[in-house]
Amino acid sequence: MLTVKTPDEVFEVMKESFAACPVSERVPLSAALGRVLFSAVESREYVPGFDRSTVDGYAVRAADTFGCSDAIPALLALQGEVNMGEAAAEKLQNGSCIYVSTGGAVPKGADAVVMIEHTEDYGDSTIGITKAVAPGENLIYKGDDVYPGKPVISAGRLIAAQDIGALAAMGITEVEVCRRLAVAIISTGDELVSADETPADGQIRDLNSPMLAAMVTQAGCEPRCYGIVPDDTEKLSAALDKALKECDVVLISGGSSVGAKDATDEVIESKGEVLFHGIAMKPGKPTILGKVGMKPVWGLPGHPVAAFLVGHIFVRPLLAQLMGREVKTYTMPAQLTESVSANHGRAQYNGAHLVFCDGEWYAQPVRGKSGLIATLADTEGYFCIPRDKEGAAAGEIVSVTLYSID
Amino acid sequence: MLTVKTPDEVFEVMKESFAACPVSERVPLSAALGRVLFSAVESREYVPGFDRSTVDGYAVRAADTFGCSDAIPALLALQGEVNMGEAAAEKLQNGSCIYVSTGGAVPKGADAVVMIEHTEDYGDSTIGITKAVAPGENLIYKGDDVYPGKPVISAGRLIAAQDIGALAAMGITEVEVCRRLAVAIISTGDELVSADETPADGQIRDLNSPMLAAMVTQAGCEPRCYGIVPDDTEKLSAALDKALKECDVVLISGGSSVGAKDATDEVIESKGEVLFHGIAMKPGKPTILGKVGMKPVWGLPGHPVAAFLVGHIFVRPLLAQLMGREVKTYTMPAQLTESVSANHGRAQYNGAHLVFCDGEWYAQPVRGKSGLIATLADTEGYFCIPRDKEGAAAGEIVSVTLYSID
Repeated sequence: MLTVKTPDEVFEVMKESFAACPVSERVPLSAALGRVLFSAVESREYVPGFDRSTVDGYAVRAADTFGCSDAIPALLALQGEVNMGEAAAEKLQNGSCIYVSTGGAVPKGADAVVMIEHTEDYGDSTIGITKAVAPGENLIYKGDDVYPGKPVISAGRLIAAQDIGALAAMGITEVEVCRRLAVAIISTGDELVSADETPADGQIRDLNSPMLAAMVTQAGCEPRCYGIVPDDTEKLSAALDKALKECDVVLISGGSSVGAKDATDEVIESKGEVLFHGIAMKPGKPTILGKVGMKPVWGLPGHPVAAFLVGHIFVRPLLAQLMGREVKTYTMPAQLTESVSANHGRAQYNGAHLVFCDGEWYAQPVRGKSGLIATLADTEGYFCIPRDKEGAAAGEIVSVTLYSID
Repeated sequence: MLTVKTPDEVFEVMKESFAACPVSERVPLSAALGRVLFSAVESREYVPGFDRSTVDGYAVRAADTFGCSDAIPALLALQGEVNMGEAAAEKLQNGSCIYVSTGGAVPKGADAVVMIEHTEDYGDSTIGITKAVAPGENLIYKGDDVYPGKPVISAGRLIAAQDIGALAAMGITEVEVCRRLAVAIISTGDELVSADETPADGQIRDLNSPMLAAMVTQAGCEPRCYGIVPDDTEKLSAALDKALKECDVVLISGGSSVGAKDATDEVIESKGEVLFHGIAMKPGKPTILGKVGMKPVWGLPGHPVAAFLVGHIFVRPLLAQLMGREVKTYTMPAQLTESVSANHGRAQYNGAHLVFCDGEWYAQPVRGKSGLIATLADTEGYFCIPRDKEGAAAGEIVSVTLYSID
């Protein structure tokens, strides 16, 4: 009998059984996109490094502008101009102003900048100010954005384009990231031929290897495919030995049904420990998680849709956990276009194609039975019908969990 | 004066002015992840290629099981077994059954499979069936999933792991994808030094180049950085000539404020056409879109947050459009943790950090003023306060548009 876990119990087992891999490496900023930040980044300097104007205009003492208006402009002596990219050399004198462009340095003595639109140049080095400014107006003070020691990016963050910008601004051109985990992928089954072969009658192509390899790549890890192993305990054992020697995580798909061939269970047991065999979900029930040394070994269902869903829901978060981060799950409320039946005593996971129309999201469920290409291709996510619910009706709002977004 | 467009008008200009680039290339399936499918994929074969069992059990004629029960099993003669990966050689005889494993070939003559759990083996080649099956139960017919000519994946789809699985299943090991667009990135400004230099007083680091390069990579294109060009029309003109010669799209950031330096506008005008100068949004107003020959030239704001938002909201969809696809925008309803003021007569875009807590999403808005690193780092998306709204209160539900997800 399978000792079946609920999805929540699976997450608990994962948390209890595996620790984050403590190995990092340094990469240049240009190679940091999509990598996982190893430790939190604090700023080492002030940004901006000087008081900086946010407008084109005149740096002033705010007090010199109080009470002015279109009718009664404040008259200030033009003391000079700050060139872009240069320091403000002179200190601003009382009753004076200095021209500064957007992004330019605000001179000492000034505490605000008047936008050029609210000034008049009388031509004789006198500038009329027609709108008062408050202290601090239209400028950013040194360190206003970040200062030495200020936490900027959290450890475990998947580095995105906006983070690259923040890191570059602080002069951080090399980043300490988690090492990419090597993930072994093994397909088992006497009926399998590789995707580039023509299957004879009774054979099917191994699509799990390329699909799981792509998923592993998307998860920021490095997939290594070990090919197709026949339903043979010794051969599987040898393949697993090699994979464990060379990789951090092993994904075996196929051979995990209780029946003639629970070789995966046996082989894991012979080298380490089977943490559970079976998840209360449909599809995906015949899933195994084992541990050999410190390394996770998954026995994924042979059925590609089940392997994909279990991969998305459990394998991906475990890979993230090993790299010291937590995967966030994003769900979209969407209106179901067709009714879907369910009645299994297990949570049922259904693929869905999301269509945006007239300001609303619609979820087109994919038919369960054909359950292979049609359930995978062109889908954006899945929704779950809980075990105590008999189905979902057309028009019902379901929560579609996204696989990824553009 | 700027001829300011609303965001919707910008999308219209983009649609009217630029056509999809008609150049494709063939890549192996292992390199297809994240590429854009050039033309729709139809299946060339039947999947599965034979009638296939979805359970471990006995292939039968459904009619032979009608009326059976635990008390009165239907007795069938065991005719043999189909090995995994082999064709079902024999035709099923009336009153007989043939053992088949999950995924195995169902023999001719059988129209259903009885799960092993609903059978009893009497040992003398007689199998008792204790639960009737309907025709078609527990099997997938040849071509049930796909058949020759069936549309499987739409043109313009960004190829994801699940699509790789579907393509592999159909034996498609090479995919025709849109050529990666080469996108030139030029930063302009006398105040800029590159991220690996130490800025003197009055200087700041160019973070737009690495940030936009990362964004371009995420959009499935190839970034090419042309470095920092000073505020000088001739130098910018020379840089743009080189970029236009070598790339499909040009992004110039900085130099697009009306004021001392609208060199970008001038330089684009001298070689082609400025389609608009100014978008009614904050930040991001001083944005230019031009067209030289058939190529888009963007003049993005120098302010990094503005450049990032305009990049995400407009540049990314235009890159997608050139590659023949449409970007879907995913928004999450989230509760604002702090109030945000707005009062500009322009739609205001605010960065947000998303936190998931007790089943709810919360959006932590980032302060507008400091507007640089703090507005970019660690954020997941943005929300928009429409031009006719004075702000958003703490506790209000805002729609956060995601930049990307894990």
